[in-house]
Amino acid sequence: MKTKKLSTQPYKGTRDFYPEDMRLRNWIFNTMRTTAQSFGYEEYDGPMLELFEMYAAKSGEELVNEQLYHFQDRGGRHVAIRPEMTPTVSRMVAARINTIPRPIRWFSIPNLWRYERPQKGRLREHWQFNVDVFGVDSVLADLEIIEIAIQIMLDLGGDFTDFRIHISNRKLLNDFMTRALELDESGKQAVCKTIDKKDKLQNDEFRRMLSQTGLTRDKIDSLIDFTRLDRAGLARHEMIATSGAVELESLFGKLKESELDRFCTLDLSIVRGLDYYTGTVFEMYDLHPDNRRALFGGGRYDNLVALFSNQPLSGVGFGMGDVTIQDFMITHQLIPVLPPPVEVFVALFDETCLGEVRDCARRIRRAGFRVIAQIEPVKLTKQYKFAHQKNIPVVVLQGPDERAGNTISLKQMISGEQKTVPESELNAAIRAWLRRM
Amino acid sequence: MKTKKLSTQPYKGTRDFYPEDMRLRNWIFNTMRTTAQSFGYEEYDGPMLELFEMYAAKSGEELVNEQLYHFQDRGGRHVAIRPEMTPTVSRMVAARINTIPRPIRWFSIPNLWRYERPQKGRLREHWQFNVDVFGVDSVLADLEIIEIAIQIMLDLGGDFTDFRIHISNRKLLNDFMTRALELDESGKQAVCKTIDKKDKLQNDEFRRMLSQTGLTRDKIDSLIDFTRLDRAGLARHEMIATSGAVELESLFGKLKESELDRFCTLDLSIVRGLDYYTGTVFEMYDLHPDNRRALFGGGRYDNLVALFSNQPLSGVGFGMGDVTIQDFMITHQLIPVLPPPVEVFVALFDETCLGEVRDCARRIRRAGFRVIAQIEPVKLTKQYKFAHQKNIPVVVLQGPDERAGNTISLKQMISGEQKTVPESELNAAIRAWLRRM
Repeated sequence: MKTKKLSTQPYKGTRDFYPEDMRLRNWIFNTMRTTAQSFGYEEYDGPMLELFEMYAAKSGEELVNEQLYHFQDRGGRHVAIRPEMTPTVSRMVAARINTIPRPIRWFSIPNLWRYERPQKGRLREHWQFNVDVFGVDSVLADLEIIEIAIQIMLDLGGDFTDFRIHISNRKLLNDFMTRALELDESGKQAVCKTIDKKDKLQNDEFRRMLSQTGLTRDKIDSLIDFTRLDRAGLARHEMIATSGAVELESLFGKLKESELDRFCTLDLSIVRGLDYYTGTVFEMYDLHPDNRRALFGGGRYDNLVALFSNQPLSGVGFGMGDVTIQDFMITHQLIPVLPPPVEVFVALFDETCLGEVRDCARRIRRAGFRVIAQIEPVKLTKQYKFAHQKNIPVVVLQGPDERAGNTISLKQMISGEQKTVPESELNAAIRAWLRRM
Repeated sequence: MKTKKLSTQPYKGTRDFYPEDMRLRNWIFNTMRTTAQSFGYEEYDGPMLELFEMYAAKSGEELVNEQLYHFQDRGGRHVAIRPEMTPTVSRMVAARINTIPRPIRWFSIPNLWRYERPQKGRLREHWQFNVDVFGVDSVLADLEIIEIAIQIMLDLGGDFTDFRIHISNRKLLNDFMTRALELDESGKQAVCKTIDKKDKLQNDEFRRMLSQTGLTRDKIDSLIDFTRLDRAGLARHEMIATSGAVELESLFGKLKESELDRFCTLDLSIVRGLDYYTGTVFEMYDLHPDNRRALFGGGRYDNLVALFSNQPLSGVGFGMGDVTIQDFMITHQLIPVLPPPVEVFVALFDETCLGEVRDCARRIRRAGFRVIAQIEPVKLTKQYKFAHQKNIPVVVLQGPDERAGNTISLKQMISGEQKTVPESELNAAIRAWLRRM
């Protein structure tokens, strides 16, 4: 009688990473690491669970009420699985605020959880490359963060025809909503949330949602005109003298000086979903016609560390999700061909050679190669078939003839080329073949 | 008025990894990766959450009833945060049981959660290096897994005076409990659990707990004698002809042939806490007098894939936790000195040089170095102080004189040595200094 089997599917909205998937994930994460480290950023990590109150404070209603995984632990603590990394990094920085030299340049690649209906680009579990600098109040820090966001896109294989950074400033939009739209705080929040959803809405639906926030038709027109301003338009606009606009102008000047302006565009419709941003905000857009969407974003949050500490400390950063970035790489055909995970297979002539095979594999490993040794005595044809199925490029075999002459045979699996070399030259022969691949 | 601040402490039983902690963690994990890959093992990963029923089936009562983090998600699914990786890997293997070439050699370094009272070597969140081979029924696979467990200890810097693998066989203990102790299944489970706790109990307390399982004094004597047998004693014991004893003898023969026997010892008191083991079981012991305890363990589990598939597939593996292994490294003074995370600091002469500094940093980065560029114009003494606090070995500065002559100055922070080189020789000069360190 067959018993009922458990499902082999992973939990909804999550992924299993089989070795071929994991190799790509490791390649992407290592590229992120190398880019961040090249700018002097250092990696950190925090726990998967945090206290619920950390997110309740600043992460925004939608996230906390609809998307957060939270529960009581066995000791009655109300805990949450981290949905984003910024509260954790702010907590960690606050804990050592007097001892870490500033600016603090940190990065991390945590897995994050949100309860969502799985769809393209959105899963319940994803990994996010977080890059943050703390302790610099000027837009020069925003510039460094934007340069890193551009550099990682280039290091993943993109070029400036593939992506564009849309940049705005929360203070500017905020001041505009106060002055021109005469909104109070809750009105501004409602309008921000609507603007943030703009890309997903038809124009008339967008206007209808704005009118539901209490805006008159004239004010809606004025808001839409404002969000469509380019730099020349902003320069002529009455808001140009406000501190948010001055910051934006200064940032674009520095971007030009650094020859990064061709990757960037002003877009006053950028708000970012999270409540804690206070200055520069930006989103990276894919320019491909099939995938024209925001890939990731970031900005300046000057008050987040203040949740944990009486000492103010400003931060700027971004978070780049692995799901959307992999979609980007697929769309632009940037997925790299990676080297073979196993380089050498040591075949087993018969069971009298078990010890020799393990010994030979050990010698090849010591030279730095990735080596599988045949475990059990089975037919040689079956062993070669296994090496072929696993795409192992080199097979090594020492039969009785070779052993008598202290030699060893190698076969290159793709070309079929074979040769026999003295035992002492085995590693050099393997190296020469692998280098040629 | 000060508002109440949130705590900067991480959730109980978890760790924040500040950059210096993360560097060590990455070094340890990369060592694990390199060791596993050198044996042809490939990395995989699965989701942090799995369905509760996966653990309910086989992971053992204590884990499920007392230690598992589990809850209902917003859609009513009963989910658990993974407390161990073996059920996940068994699920993943079962899902592709007909397409993956065998043997399947996989490893992973997941973070795992157990609700525990935090104490030395035990935290609520820890990472575990999992190494498994599927599809080989003979003890030759057990031998390969034990060789990897030994190799990782050596690669972390240990030697054979630091650790010892204690090896037993579940089948042998099981058959002994049936024949000599005349126990039924539930009696055997109770006795196994008691034996597993032996290291933490005084002798009389151990005997008392065994008597509570219903064993007579004679049987307790006989059991204790049995668990103390060495190989010579086992050879004379009536159990020597049973399949578990034959497997053990065969395994020790192979260990000797591979010159691994000096790392290993027979220890019939090893059972392992988890219910699913069916053959060889082993635990790695620290030999240091201050830290004499089991560091990690593993074994053969022939029926776990059967939870998910009608096709049988046997597995052998081990799981090595990062907390205990770091304790081991500290005890034996094996913590390595790691290279500096940031190699070069590009100082800023004054604000007219902002563009040049960013440009110079970019050129040094392109040569593969990890470089911080000063963001804001501040006094040079403050910049040098920052470089010193962060232990950055090389500081680069281009003032007006250097700029006029297309040269650049370098300072080696430890020696205080300074020199000025043509711009075109900057990267070579940095490389030469860093290599000498």
